[in-house]
Amino acid sequence: MSNKTILLDHGSGGLTSQKLISGMFLKYLDNPILRTLEDSAVLENQPGKLAFTTDSYVVDPIFFPGGDIGKLAVHGTINDLAMRGARPLCLSLGLILEEGFPLEELERVIVSISESCNEAGVPIVTGDTKVVPRGKGDKIFINTSGIGFIEEDITISSRMAQEGDIVILSGTMGDHGITIMTRQAGISVKGDLKSDTMPLHNLVQKLLHEIPGCVHTLRDPTRGGVASTLNEIAENSGLCIELSDESLPVRPEIRAACELLGLEPLYLANEGKCIAIVRGDKADKALEIMRSTSEGSEAAIIGRVIAGKAGRVIINTPVGGKRIVTPLHGEPLPRIC
Amino acid sequence: MSNKTILLDHGSGGLTSQKLISGMFLKYLDNPILRTLEDSAVLENQPGKLAFTTDSYVVDPIFFPGGDIGKLAVHGTINDLAMRGARPLCLSLGLILEEGFPLEELERVIVSISESCNEAGVPIVTGDTKVVPRGKGDKIFINTSGIGFIEEDITISSRMAQEGDIVILSGTMGDHGITIMTRQAGISVKGDLKSDTMPLHNLVQKLLHEIPGCVHTLRDPTRGGVASTLNEIAENSGLCIELSDESLPVRPEIRAACELLGLEPLYLANEGKCIAIVRGDKADKALEIMRSTSEGSEAAIIGRVIAGKAGRVIINTPVGGKRIVTPLHGEPLPRIC
Repeated sequence: MSNKTILLDHGSGGLTSQKLISGMFLKYLDNPILRTLEDSAVLENQPGKLAFTTDSYVVDPIFFPGGDIGKLAVHGTINDLAMRGARPLCLSLGLILEEGFPLEELERVIVSISESCNEAGVPIVTGDTKVVPRGKGDKIFINTSGIGFIEEDITISSRMAQEGDIVILSGTMGDHGITIMTRQAGISVKGDLKSDTMPLHNLVQKLLHEIPGCVHTLRDPTRGGVASTLNEIAENSGLCIELSDESLPVRPEIRAACELLGLEPLYLANEGKCIAIVRGDKADKALEIMRSTSEGSEAAIIGRVIAGKAGRVIINTPVGGKRIVTPLHGEPLPRIC
Repeated sequence: MSNKTILLDHGSGGLTSQKLISGMFLKYLDNPILRTLEDSAVLENQPGKLAFTTDSYVVDPIFFPGGDIGKLAVHGTINDLAMRGARPLCLSLGLILEEGFPLEELERVIVSISESCNEAGVPIVTGDTKVVPRGKGDKIFINTSGIGFIEEDITISSRMAQEGDIVILSGTMGDHGITIMTRQAGISVKGDLKSDTMPLHNLVQKLLHEIPGCVHTLRDPTRGGVASTLNEIAENSGLCIELSDESLPVRPEIRAACELLGLEPLYLANEGKCIAIVRGDKADKALEIMRSTSEGSEAAIIGRVIAGKAGRVIINTPVGGKRIVTPLHGEPLPRIC
């Protein structure tokens, strides 16, 4: 029994740690840089500006329809790099395991990380594993940090949004958030709910190269959802963002679940969507490019950047009214990612 | 009361998260790159090879004589970069906080991180905060990842150790390990025990530039101690390492505590020490350079690299015998870093 779960000794830095590293981590994640197992990975430098990001993942449950904590950790960090216009080069993998966590479940997570890295073409090059006693953690927490490179003439930032820009969302809202929430709450709803977790770096590169200089802002609306992300963009750019309620893409089953649970899709977490803010005259072209990719096949123009009270997000309702969309206040359910 | 501890809402990505970020993290860690609060930090590229590393810190207790979890997280990752010969450029900061963790303690940790970063000259440029429900974590876990640059002609690796090389340890063994263990066990021992946590990048740069090409291997003997680290070096280089028991530097109070607790200093964690393996004819010069720094003032030659059974570490005992030093097997106490 004891050899089938994580032991404190797996985090000791001694022989048992080494066995876990070579017997499981290298088995699935092997590449010439990771294989050295030195204190740091050493890589060839690349041309361009350096992008660097970090995210920890504590999602509960760790396995869910459409993905798992490992896939999320790979995609989420790749997407944070992509949102500055960077091509991801590599990731780090930091694991905090709870004593007693089944090795079989750890293996499933590592296999999923391996598959996600291979699909995305971004390797894990360095890692670390700690073990905490039973009851001092919760199965597995993952940190991935990532490095990418940005071509010198590309500047993507939430401060770059300009009056007249168009706001495009790369797909439907709320799929990840509702999937996790219904699992956490033990609620079963009609329809095929699954996380949208997906890497967006290829979609972003296509957009940046086909309409050079015309993409001003990219953000992935994860925790806090589209509403909170747009509020940050409005605040950082000192402008106002106007949305059209009717254009917001939401799957019928997600909308139904939201109505049942009293939730607003604008505040739900997404893990495979981006908001692109592009020059007005290139909006149709940008939409066409996004829709030509599998990641962005359901992209939609959802609003525009206008002058007005700085930092405000407003929505035009179907009955002809307007309301203010505030950032998320109060966490509906924790551990969504 | 509720506004003085961490709430689930601090991890929501909404307004409460934003307040924690601007009111505490930016207050102490502010710099022009972190301040943008974008999905990734963007930095000027530097010449040289890229070094990348990650480490999570789960030490218990989080405050201890000589340091705290924040200081450890800054120093540990800087040291992992330094051990490949890299100049550290920047760090990321990933926090996993337990609901109910006092904000005052979080502030102490963040202040300590700020001080450590300033002293080392290495800024935090990107971060992430997650909150887990009470009982699903333990106060605070920290991940720091780091990027550094290595001059093109420098190659430091545990595979580079060569027959005839001399093994130098930059100071005394076991200070960090014994300090944490006695605190965890609630044992009070005589003498002034404190962690040796300390950044080593300046010492390393000095060594690399004063005896260019003559430093073959650098490793910091953290978890698993000097014994486990030397075993890894012996294995990776395919050589044998011979130590002299009498030359191993250990403070009298650490030795006394070890005897009381039945521990061997060779297996205890260190957080401000490095093992340098240098060309035999430069050993005295290397020792002189290390001793001229405050970090390495108690450096000592502890052994040499010899031909013999690959991967073996042996020690010459004071009575004229030899014994094999195996890697750590079985964790004496968890959460040492």
